[in-house]
Amino acid sequence: MSILRSDRNPIIKPEDIKPSRPDFRVIGVFNCGVTRFHKEVLLLMRVAEMPVNPNPKKILVPEMDIETKELNVIEFDKSDPSVDYSDPRVLKTSKGKFLTSVSHLHAARSKNGIEFNIDDKPAMLPENEYEKLGIEDPRITYIDDRYYVNYNAISDITGVSVCLASTKDFKEFTRYGVIFMPDNKDASIFPEKIKDKYYALSRPISPEFGEKDIWLSDSSDITAWGNHRLLMEAREGYWDSAWIGGGAAPFKTKEGWVEIYHGVSSDERYCLGAVLLDKDEPWKIIARSEKPIIEPEAPYELRGFFGNVVFTCGALFEEGVVKIYYGAADTYIAYAEIKLEEIYKQMK
Amino acid sequence: MSILRSDRNPIIKPEDIKPSRPDFRVIGVFNCGVTRFHKEVLLLMRVAEMPVNPNPKKILVPEMDIETKELNVIEFDKSDPSVDYSDPRVLKTSKGKFLTSVSHLHAARSKNGIEFNIDDKPAMLPENEYEKLGIEDPRITYIDDRYYVNYNAISDITGVSVCLASTKDFKEFTRYGVIFMPDNKDASIFPEKIKDKYYALSRPISPEFGEKDIWLSDSSDITAWGNHRLLMEAREGYWDSAWIGGGAAPFKTKEGWVEIYHGVSSDERYCLGAVLLDKDEPWKIIARSEKPIIEPEAPYELRGFFGNVVFTCGALFEEGVVKIYYGAADTYIAYAEIKLEEIYKQMK
Repeated sequence: MSILRSDRNPIIKPEDIKPSRPDFRVIGVFNCGVTRFHKEVLLLMRVAEMPVNPNPKKILVPEMDIETKELNVIEFDKSDPSVDYSDPRVLKTSKGKFLTSVSHLHAARSKNGIEFNIDDKPAMLPENEYEKLGIEDPRITYIDDRYYVNYNAISDITGVSVCLASTKDFKEFTRYGVIFMPDNKDASIFPEKIKDKYYALSRPISPEFGEKDIWLSDSSDITAWGNHRLLMEAREGYWDSAWIGGGAAPFKTKEGWVEIYHGVSSDERYCLGAVLLDKDEPWKIIARSEKPIIEPEAPYELRGFFGNVVFTCGALFEEGVVKIYYGAADTYIAYAEIKLEEIYKQMK
Repeated sequence: MSILRSDRNPIIKPEDIKPSRPDFRVIGVFNCGVTRFHKEVLLLMRVAEMPVNPNPKKILVPEMDIETKELNVIEFDKSDPSVDYSDPRVLKTSKGKFLTSVSHLHAARSKNGIEFNIDDKPAMLPENEYEKLGIEDPRITYIDDRYYVNYNAISDITGVSVCLASTKDFKEFTRYGVIFMPDNKDASIFPEKIKDKYYALSRPISPEFGEKDIWLSDSSDITAWGNHRLLMEAREGYWDSAWIGGGAAPFKTKEGWVEIYHGVSSDERYCLGAVLLDKDEPWKIIARSEKPIIEPEAPYELRGFFGNVVFTCGALFEEGVVKIYYGAADTYIAYAEIKLEEIYKQMK
């Protein structure tokens, strides 16, 4: 597999982002949707922040006050035996489960696709009870002169759901609320109708039977979805053996729809691969990557807030080349190019 | 609370139902949807069957072969240490999780609402991969000369999802597939549009945050659903403290929409209560039962395949009286009447 990682990788780092408030620090800028916007490449990035913590005996976690819609900082003692901070991403306490960071969405723009100007202000901040613990992992789909943005909304009240918004300028956003009920994440919307229906991928979870697979849904209006069907499952013995989830918004090729998705192995290593879906009947799988397209190898992919992770929410397909923007180690944004024919060669 | 249980309770028992095949026995006939059909009361009942098992050293579990769509019987040794049969409903094995029984839907008809003629043949049998381990807990909603039936579809491949079908005669059914992705169950559809939208309740599960609450969704066409909103949560210190789920299809009263739902306490005792929703804005809760309407008290509610359970999928509201058909101890169908005003009295 011949893949070109940018020699500027990681192309965006936490220190490139201004915190959304002075008492927060940016600990990660990673999973990002991507689109062409006014001839530039526009990224809508997940920015994760933690409260600045001057006291090493304490743990500070952010949480929205549902009444005021303000983010508060809650303090826990590290010496409290009921506080479990073994997972760097999650804090388990007698008061419930918190995320150690809170994410919002932030835009960056580039003429050459590598060097980005980062907006001063966040594009979207969490603002309601579904988004109480943050908004994450946006995907962008351009339809009828509008950019649709779906993202994961995290809340200890409502769980993990997929929400939809749209924008024309990446400054003002219209929210449509929850399109896929909890727990569901990693949705992506196809950029055009196929025989009068929009299609979307998503990844519902079945706690009862331990399933975390990719489903396909259809819609007449992008906001109400039905006809939900299991599309593809994790594969025993492969790089995507433990669970899978959608990645970039699918793009159309001569051969069909290509979806770059993530697969996770039993040791929680996140890789990227592709699936080719029938052009007219996207519930039919034509081929699937035998091996990953990208796997964690570079230092910035191996080490970070949560290492051994490559994860994409956006890719551009231009002149036969797939340009993948991806989160590395839940900390950075990196960039890689791969020819579509290379992806096809490794599919079965 | 003045509630009238029928002195014929349980009104339908397992021995009243002919098994769907000679090597199966009926172990439960319980949660049922209800409607008026040709002036009769029609129940669509969940019938649970187990393979007849002549060998006490074995455990036999039913499972659909996805290729042939036939139900097979799989055999496990009780002496196998990897087989866990501590829960009577579920068998955990090294080959995965099975249900010990498989459910289908079966119709019964009555002129007086108490004495039922039971159809010879099942109305709906599991028939696809979403229904691999059975179909359960139907609710009926009559809209535009059609009876819509939503039910829980159980599968170790796809999880627990809510499926929709419709019928005009309870003999031929049109399936619309999955309307709410896994894990979700206990949906019920409102019988009429409210300001141009259909509404439905459902109960998604968030494994990530342990939430099992009732949500409200809307739709233009009954098959594609969006605008999903958290409607109501379990209440600490109440009869519905552990989790809740929708029950009968909501019915309209002068004061608003009444939903009879089930609430579960931390010791897994299932009771029934009611919630009153605003007539025009059903996402607004006006009042909710302080105490259960029905709680397991009668012998047939306390003891059975899974005891301490009253659970409804259907109620008729006629002349000020709520006529509740309910599953008792996951074994029987029972009947009770309660005046609407009695329900209102205990609400807050």
